[in-house]
Amino acid sequence: MADIFEVPQPSNDLLEKADRIRFASKIISQAENKIRIKALNLMADYLEKNSKKILEANYEDYLRAERKNISKALISRLKLSKEKLNAAIEGVRKVGELSDPVNQIQIKKELSNGLILERKTVPIGVLGVIFESRPDAVMQISSLAIRSGNGVMLKGGSEASYTNTAIVLALQEGLQKSGIDENVICLLTSRKDSMAMLNLNEYLNLIIPRGSNELVQFIQENTKIPVLGHADGICHLFIDNDVNIDMALSVALDSKIQYPAACNAIETLLIHKDIAPGFLKRAIPLFNSNDVKLIGDKQSVELGVEFEASFQDWQTEYLDLVLSVKIVEDLDEAISHIQKFSSKHTDGIITENISTANRFMNEVDSAGVFHNCSTRFADGFRYGFGAEVGISTQMLPPRGPVGLEGLVTYKYFLKGQGNIVDDFSSGRAVFTHKDL
Amino acid sequence: MADIFEVPQPSNDLLEKADRIRFASKIISQAENKIRIKALNLMADYLEKNSKKILEANYEDYLRAERKNISKALISRLKLSKEKLNAAIEGVRKVGELSDPVNQIQIKKELSNGLILERKTVPIGVLGVIFESRPDAVMQISSLAIRSGNGVMLKGGSEASYTNTAIVLALQEGLQKSGIDENVICLLTSRKDSMAMLNLNEYLNLIIPRGSNELVQFIQENTKIPVLGHADGICHLFIDNDVNIDMALSVALDSKIQYPAACNAIETLLIHKDIAPGFLKRAIPLFNSNDVKLIGDKQSVELGVEFEASFQDWQTEYLDLVLSVKIVEDLDEAISHIQKFSSKHTDGIITENISTANRFMNEVDSAGVFHNCSTRFADGFRYGFGAEVGISTQMLPPRGPVGLEGLVTYKYFLKGQGNIVDDFSSGRAVFTHKDL
Repeated sequence: MADIFEVPQPSNDLLEKADRIRFASKIISQAENKIRIKALNLMADYLEKNSKKILEANYEDYLRAERKNISKALISRLKLSKEKLNAAIEGVRKVGELSDPVNQIQIKKELSNGLILERKTVPIGVLGVIFESRPDAVMQISSLAIRSGNGVMLKGGSEASYTNTAIVLALQEGLQKSGIDENVICLLTSRKDSMAMLNLNEYLNLIIPRGSNELVQFIQENTKIPVLGHADGICHLFIDNDVNIDMALSVALDSKIQYPAACNAIETLLIHKDIAPGFLKRAIPLFNSNDVKLIGDKQSVELGVEFEASFQDWQTEYLDLVLSVKIVEDLDEAISHIQKFSSKHTDGIITENISTANRFMNEVDSAGVFHNCSTRFADGFRYGFGAEVGISTQMLPPRGPVGLEGLVTYKYFLKGQGNIVDDFSSGRAVFTHKDL
Repeated sequence: MADIFEVPQPSNDLLEKADRIRFASKIISQAENKIRIKALNLMADYLEKNSKKILEANYEDYLRAERKNISKALISRLKLSKEKLNAAIEGVRKVGELSDPVNQIQIKKELSNGLILERKTVPIGVLGVIFESRPDAVMQISSLAIRSGNGVMLKGGSEASYTNTAIVLALQEGLQKSGIDENVICLLTSRKDSMAMLNLNEYLNLIIPRGSNELVQFIQENTKIPVLGHADGICHLFIDNDVNIDMALSVALDSKIQYPAACNAIETLLIHKDIAPGFLKRAIPLFNSNDVKLIGDKQSVELGVEFEASFQDWQTEYLDLVLSVKIVEDLDEAISHIQKFSSKHTDGIITENISTANRFMNEVDSAGVFHNCSTRFADGFRYGFGAEVGISTQMLPPRGPVGLEGLVTYKYFLKGQGNIVDDFSSGRAVFTHKDL
């Protein structure tokens, strides 16, 4: 994509919007917990009050999408039913119930007599979120941003622009009633602006792309703003030889078919050679009867897998009912295959052997390492974070499923009584470094 | 600099080195705490055993530098006395005494019956460290890397290449004796390699530049590897009108002169207009007698400051006995000046008014906000972190002075008993989300 699109310089109109959101974000960054909760409840109230308008706008988008012959999958994600909208509104209230991510004391200590250091969490500033058609994302992301005291600049898919505009107007009405500057949420509607966003280094502190691999990769390569997200989700499951075959089959099937389009679904099944014949004998008919196309290495084709894999298969995220299968010599080969091809999202092992499991979990350096359970558990809600802003596959924190924690940073507060460093170098004062 | 230098592709020799360090880092990432401590002690022992060689090598570097007419400041940083070397060796042992940053449990909870989630700290992988002449940095950085279970690729200034080579050989000897693959520390000696390092995306997980603003900026702009560090350190001190003038003078002086070349020294003093005449009357002779050149805005020049400031002064890190002075209307003007010009390193206020102090500390979004104490306290050792890998001025964590915490990341370990997600969507299982 980098060759096709160019990142334009922000227009004056966009710079003005960025200025307003920056200003509004400074105010909400100082808002107390109860004010932010009140804002979320009013945002939910005004979504309810405007639900007829929102659904009508969504119907407009839907008609337009039908005329444009947009894919069925996209249309189904675009369509907002009364129930889906109500669930999203409930979601906004739920975010208000999550514990406050801001003003959490992480460190508190006395450095010396009368010199007290605190490290507290603070909002990041302004988030830039780029997402595809799902209009429920507008409500979810906006509520997470407000909960964590941040401003948010949103750019949704153009297919959903009537819906997104109606939703943002309702959210802004709610914000206004709560006394918070409504400019803290801003919706961009043109594609040009969404690209120019990537050049708003001075205004945006974090970009969160939610969409296709291509979109995420393009953004990562075309902005100096930190990006929270992941491109590929190539997850593996290794079936060890010391295994309960029933469990292995059940977890492998769930990891593939429970929602194949998700990033935490597996793309490759690695099977220990000693168990491969017995496992595949039962796995092939099971996957076949669930419409999963198996593509295997030479050895697994010899054991009945229908299609032969190319090198490309090991690095492909199918996001579909397709699974590549490879038979490995031992744990070492499984780990090195994963280290070579994993996108470091989530990789799992099925084994009854604790020390094998531990070696796998310690040596595989993915954000999630799973033992005897489905890779589909790699998700902020399932981890109990209440809400998820995305899943990060980078090495540095935040990684894995990221909840509100990823929308705050911290700063150091040092309070003294006139303390100077010269007193310490001359020996007139000493450091005590006592935790408080 | 971006126009002058080009980042070359890694040579085969560099790729081989990178491969070896990657391999060695995977082994040390699994090494227990006591093994890593033992390695640090043996590294210190072998530095001692080789101290004569190291000092001789340093003398070679020194003679060469003298012949090349290198600046006195650089030569003084380059020169390693017996005492300086012993202190550095003591530092290596001290890093062994810091608590283990690896394998710390950050989260432990039951997601559902038999499904246990843990989040534990793990090493980052391989660090790339680029630093200027100080040879003690080799010992410090290497010991921090080993303590945190990481590999480290080092590139020091060419002026110190004999010394650095002798030090790394001694460190590797110590590692070997402890049973750790000595390739976990690797020294690059050519400038070409040090630039090509920036293209080692597949091998390095974090770059830590320690050097001039220009060096850091160049690295930030020319690599896709995450960079931990800061370019500018433009720190401010605001003298409020409700102030103890003695304290204000003492803290302002310490913040400037205690070590003017440090990034946490102040570059700009903001003074409330109501206190300005009285404060400057005493401050001007005090700073003059300490050889500090004052450069002020119009108003402060009218009150006796000798030189008038240009716009450029507000965004200059002097790193020298120079201080820009500006008189402001009130707290608001002080905050907005800081938000405009601060490099978000450390900014302080001197006031007797608690609510003024709190507003300042909450609204200024720098990594460190200080009340009634010197900005020179912004330092990992003074904060009690035991050691410092650098100071980060970015918004996202890690920010501020970064200790060993910045050299580890975390991953999620999920252990089940065959748990699958389908059971939860069908209602056969429920999430409990209990903290353990």
